[in-house]
Amino acid sequence: MTLDPARTELWRDPAAAPADRVADLMARMTTREKLAQLFGVWIGIDAAGEMAPHQHDFAIEPGDWDRLVGAGIGQLTRVFGTRPVEPLIGARGLARTQREVMAASRFGIPAQVHEECLTGLAAWRATVYPSPLCWGAAFDPALVERVGVHIGRSMRRLGVHQGMAPVLDVARDLRWGRVEETIAEDPYLVGTIGSAYVRGLESTGVVATLKHFAGYSSSKAGRNLAPVSIGARELADVLLPPFEMALRAGARSVMNAYTDNDGLPAAADPGLLTTRLREVYGFTGTVVADYFSVSFLRTLHGVAGTRAEAAAQALAAGIDVELPTVDCFGAPLLMALESGEAEVALVDRALERVLRQKCELGLLDPGWSPDPEVLADGRAELDDAESRALARELAQRSIVLLRNEDALPLAPGRRLAVIGPRADDPGAMLGCYSFPMHVGVHHPDVPMGIEVPTVREALSADHDVTYALGCPVEGGEDGGIAEAARVAADAEICVVVLGDRAGLFGGGTSGEGCDVADLRLPGRQEELLEAVLATGTPVVLVLLSGRPYELSRQADRLAAIVCGFYPGEEGGSALADVLSGRVNPSGRLPVSFPAAGATQPATYLAAPLATRSEVSTVDPTALFPFGHGLSYAPVSWGEVTGDEEWRTDGVFRLSVPLRNDTDRDSTEVVQVYLHDPVAECVQPVQRLIAAARVDLAPGEARTVRFGLHADLTSYTGRAGRRQVDPGEVELRIGASSTDIRTTLARVLTGPRREVGFDRVLSPEID
Amino acid sequence: MTLDPARTELWRDPAAAPADRVADLMARMTTREKLAQLFGVWIGIDAAGEMAPHQHDFAIEPGDWDRLVGAGIGQLTRVFGTRPVEPLIGARGLARTQREVMAASRFGIPAQVHEECLTGLAAWRATVYPSPLCWGAAFDPALVERVGVHIGRSMRRLGVHQGMAPVLDVARDLRWGRVEETIAEDPYLVGTIGSAYVRGLESTGVVATLKHFAGYSSSKAGRNLAPVSIGARELADVLLPPFEMALRAGARSVMNAYTDNDGLPAAADPGLLTTRLREVYGFTGTVVADYFSVSFLRTLHGVAGTRAEAAAQALAAGIDVELPTVDCFGAPLLMALESGEAEVALVDRALERVLRQKCELGLLDPGWSPDPEVLADGRAELDDAESRALARELAQRSIVLLRNEDALPLAPGRRLAVIGPRADDPGAMLGCYSFPMHVGVHHPDVPMGIEVPTVREALSADHDVTYALGCPVEGGEDGGIAEAARVAADAEICVVVLGDRAGLFGGGTSGEGCDVADLRLPGRQEELLEAVLATGTPVVLVLLSGRPYELSRQADRLAAIVCGFYPGEEGGSALADVLSGRVNPSGRLPVSFPAAGATQPATYLAAPLATRSEVSTVDPTALFPFGHGLSYAPVSWGEVTGDEEWRTDGVFRLSVPLRNDTDRDSTEVVQVYLHDPVAECVQPVQRLIAAARVDLAPGEARTVRFGLHADLTSYTGRAGRRQVDPGEVELRIGASSTDIRTTLARVLTGPRREVGFDRVLSPEID
Repeated sequence: MTLDPARTELWRDPAAAPADRVADLMARMTTREKLAQLFGVWIGIDAAGEMAPHQHDFAIEPGDWDRLVGAGIGQLTRVFGTRPVEPLIGARGLARTQREVMAASRFGIPAQVHEECLTGLAAWRATVYPSPLCWGAAFDPALVERVGVHIGRSMRRLGVHQGMAPVLDVARDLRWGRVEETIAEDPYLVGTIGSAYVRGLESTGVVATLKHFAGYSSSKAGRNLAPVSIGARELADVLLPPFEMALRAGARSVMNAYTDNDGLPAAADPGLLTTRLREVYGFTGTVVADYFSVSFLRTLHGVAGTRAEAAAQALAAGIDVELPTVDCFGAPLLMALESGEAEVALVDRALERVLRQKCELGLLDPGWSPDPEVLADGRAELDDAESRALARELAQRSIVLLRNEDALPLAPGRRLAVIGPRADDPGAMLGCYSFPMHVGVHHPDVPMGIEVPTVREALSADHDVTYALGCPVEGGEDGGIAEAARVAADAEICVVVLGDRAGLFGGGTSGEGCDVADLRLPGRQEELLEAVLATGTPVVLVLLSGRPYELSRQADRLAAIVCGFYPGEEGGSALADVLSGRVNPSGRLPVSFPAAGATQPATYLAAPLATRSEVSTVDPTALFPFGHGLSYAPVSWGEVTGDEEWRTDGVFRLSVPLRNDTDRDSTEVVQVYLHDPVAECVQPVQRLIAAARVDLAPGEARTVRFGLHADLTSYTGRAGRRQVDPGEVELRIGASSTDIRTTLARVLTGPRREVGFDRVLSPEID
Repeated sequence: MTLDPARTELWRDPAAAPADRVADLMARMTTREKLAQLFGVWIGIDAAGEMAPHQHDFAIEPGDWDRLVGAGIGQLTRVFGTRPVEPLIGARGLARTQREVMAASRFGIPAQVHEECLTGLAAWRATVYPSPLCWGAAFDPALVERVGVHIGRSMRRLGVHQGMAPVLDVARDLRWGRVEETIAEDPYLVGTIGSAYVRGLESTGVVATLKHFAGYSSSKAGRNLAPVSIGARELADVLLPPFEMALRAGARSVMNAYTDNDGLPAAADPGLLTTRLREVYGFTGTVVADYFSVSFLRTLHGVAGTRAEAAAQALAAGIDVELPTVDCFGAPLLMALESGEAEVALVDRALERVLRQKCELGLLDPGWSPDPEVLADGRAELDDAESRALARELAQRSIVLLRNEDALPLAPGRRLAVIGPRADDPGAMLGCYSFPMHVGVHHPDVPMGIEVPTVREALSADHDVTYALGCPVEGGEDGGIAEAARVAADAEICVVVLGDRAGLFGGGTSGEGCDVADLRLPGRQEELLEAVLATGTPVVLVLLSGRPYELSRQADRLAAIVCGFYPGEEGGSALADVLSGRVNPSGRLPVSFPAAGATQPATYLAAPLATRSEVSTVDPTALFPFGHGLSYAPVSWGEVTGDEEWRTDGVFRLSVPLRNDTDRDSTEVVQVYLHDPVAECVQPVQRLIAAARVDLAPGEARTVRFGLHADLTSYTGRAGRRQVDPGEVELRIGASSTDIRTTLARVLTGPRREVGFDRVLSPEID
């Protein structure tokens, strides 16, 4: 039976209240129709624009697709991100699919379309922006917000409604392959930058998805998917604040973590997904399952004996949408509902969220067109000049100068040897969740689809460059290293470009499933570096990697060290800008570079006993600490001043006068750390509570002013609630976590206060 | 004022009930007198038998001692274990000190005397038994109990009342320096063996002290004292069961862990020290502070602002005795009591426990003599033949043969090269908490005081031995390695003895504060091994270490690998017994040997997602798994049979027929692992629930029978309580955690049951 689409049921009325529309629609739906809204399948459009379900062994079978469309499937994912497809062809294919989905359901509801978008829309030929560690390094939320806007617009034009980003996991163990997807090892920085991305994406109408909620980055030994076992306070004080900040920034979807914490998988944890997320945080959007994580309850976690049980547990916990299969939320959930193992009320709870979001997205409106905007104007350029310029700007601002013994900027006209496995490979610029690295591994013969200048190419514009590979990222021959040393010996200065190849599940040295046992440079790269150093030619090391590596054994002998993480498609140009001095380096480390012999997990957020050198032979002191970054043009600091008084419900005003006395543009990143000497529970020695990137023209002076609400000093106390304590605190204001310029000791006065989700999460900065 | 000692107050009456005696005494005491019972100081007797407070910067000042004695100090510690002192002289010094203490108090109460005793009484010239990893390897609780009896007797004779052992921390991260003090990485094994030690020690009247309660072994990154952040279920299911077992075995004291768990230091955690220990477990003994840990609340954890606050928090949490200073429980606590910051009732709570224990120990009896037994008979031999024989027996039974390519036993008369830094150093046999290694570092000129044959010496009795050091444990020269290779090349077979030097805080490669960044052999030992292997002479590796090391790179090329951990003073002889074939190796690994490239923390108790190889480039598969150990005389297994039925409150009967068809004595360690395919919370893939060491004479057949109560399948469920679930389980019965001989799948029937501290913790074994 098909209803007359012209009929004006309440749910179709755009003028009606969404809640009423959704209630009306739900009342009309059969159980099967309800369930069809609660899952999505991995449906990559192929090069010919045809629907082509992803052919992993875990995905749907050929033939299933028709059945799923016939059910009026509610969600589609990885439409553009699975195979290289021309954007216009893909958009047409999507439109055709949406028409089929709409035609198959009594209500004509289109599917909600999801796609990855961490470093840009995961589609062939789309701009690849710098990766999240670069966002953290730039300390520039406004710029990241603009990137979010650009990404959102490109998605919207292609008919994608939901972006599976940002990753808000706080880096905890540098061995983990997904550190490259995190923004930083500090929750304030992750939250601030992640929220900016969310604001940007959501401003275009695209749903941002916060992931992975919560705990994934604390997987044991940094091994992908390994269990987490952390206490409630660490969870609350380190891992959750970025989610709180990003939810307040307007994110409308949350994705669960794969991991279990202390035996309870996030996908089956109502305390996390419902009590905390819904009741404490007041979240009203959707919770979507990380891929296969509902199935994993049965197959890997062993907490459900059947698909029906897995579905019932996930639904009860608060998962609204199963992705990217219908392993559990389809027939098994239907059976569970019929047997009483699962409650219809819980289906309705999830469905209400899903349909309300569809309603907000216009997907229930009679006038909704399955044709993406791009088909109207035909402008399918996903990597236009404006996007490239934005990618370059973020790359420029994210590059971190770790060390410089007067080697940089490179003097013009010098004979340059450019050496190393990352010097002339476009892939060196791109993170694991970029389309080329994520999908390219399955399609090695397909060109990247975007221009990605390498360091070698970019430097060749300004310099007389000779090049040698030396060795690949992994493996390599003695001969290659020897040849590189010969090239180095003939040059006046060497730029050695080392680092990672991003990949998936063994396809790279960093990326999802690409964890490492230690933090030595992959393969023979350290050997290559030693061989080049042995020539006596001054060496500038450029590191393009998904995580910090041990550089202690060479650092003292290097003329300069520049860290780019994965700076995106314009990273090569940006690196040349910095190396040549056209751009002053201004990035600051979002993750510490450990010294050799330090152990993981470890971040700068260490408690006193984790930092004392007399209690252990393992010295945890970082080689380059969190927040560190040099400049060609140091900024002068005036006298830092702050209020004398600070009440437990008050704002502390802090002024930091800065002046650029040099003849080039410069930047300071003013960092404010809190040291709380006595608290109910052990605190990190210091933690970042505010930071301001301040760009200064030559001769410019500016005073940056912070308003620090006492809520920023809050922590989770013994009773398990967040509190602001009266008593002594110390504000450490500096240019890095160890380069502290001023320490202000103050006493918070007034009563102890409990604070909650509505506490002040960010400082005022002016 | 001194009371007449002849007066017969109730508290002096040995015939009265201890509770009444204690109440009577407490009623007579001033607050100062009460406090004096609640701390102990580090008071090592010197070689002349004089009291000589330990002169660390943290310990008491000269002059303090008189004041403390004047207060009638309640506890003395490290009397024999601080300096080399002849036992008789030490005993006389202790007697003199006790007389002073008794004379100084109105009540004439002697101090309770504590000493370390992990691998034997920590006194000069006392027997050093094999270290705890050897206890675990021997899988022989009865033998460890006998060791406990011997240790207890030696303490009792010297006037020591309380032994600071055993360590019940379950090994979680092999990088941790104190892994050598743990018994195993499995809680069942730690609990079973640790309880046996407790029974032995307590049977002599000496108080056993369970340490460290709880969490220490989970310090982040295996770094000594670093914070712990684990969930309640991991704590309950992995770290606490050994304490539960040992408390039920009669331990009368517990020592807190230094660490904080999730921000709350154990010393300030009433949930742990009072709710769990007293209310749930029903413990009535004393809780003594790990050394300086009350002070650490202020100085390192930052949870107390003053000494008084630290004292008040520790007392409220449940610490009864501050050790080994009077930093907080003296004047600061007195002030806190006067100001109302601490409650007198809490002082009385602690005091009642302390005095009740003193009462039980006879220290309140009028007839108590300050002269230790040893002074009566003058028999001060602490390392008699019987003790040495016992040490040798345990060493023999603990040595693990990891690999054997027909190289062992060594054929008589062959030309043997014995090589390596552990081949000819008596210290190679001794763990960090043995007197010679713990104290010897401060007294390098004092002889060990006991005979400790080295491997070289012991092998020389049977073989034509040439020797080369090769390199020290750390460091070394090319020349030494080359010389060792020459010696190896001239031999028919090489025994290379590598491993650790136990020490304290940087004084060793293993031991308290001697943590490592990775699990490569220390120093140049791997290089030495490669050089010897390169000669082509067959190599038998003997590892004497405090932790497993990576042997993957060489294992395939080694003719045999023998692991001794620290086998104690008779370890050299025992190793020669095994190498020569006089004794059949029968130890089984209590900790896994990881493969190169595996990461820490990791043990065999891994959840499914921690073991899947497709999700991460880091392969966690062990080189030599938990429970592994070879034999010269393999035991034949008959058909394993078990009940068909198993109720959730019932016992499952399992029979394992074994036969020794060889012509020498042999041993099987039958291991029963539980695999629980579906549970409320993620479970390890398997865990040990029963094990039986079975020694078989040539031709002997024996059927070992297990009675497995369903309580052994219990785990902590989602509600946070321990439960037995109905449903499928799998019993895997084998000779190691990977050498499974039979799998029995059964269904537990009956209702779900909650179980508590009184559950069945051990199988019946017959």
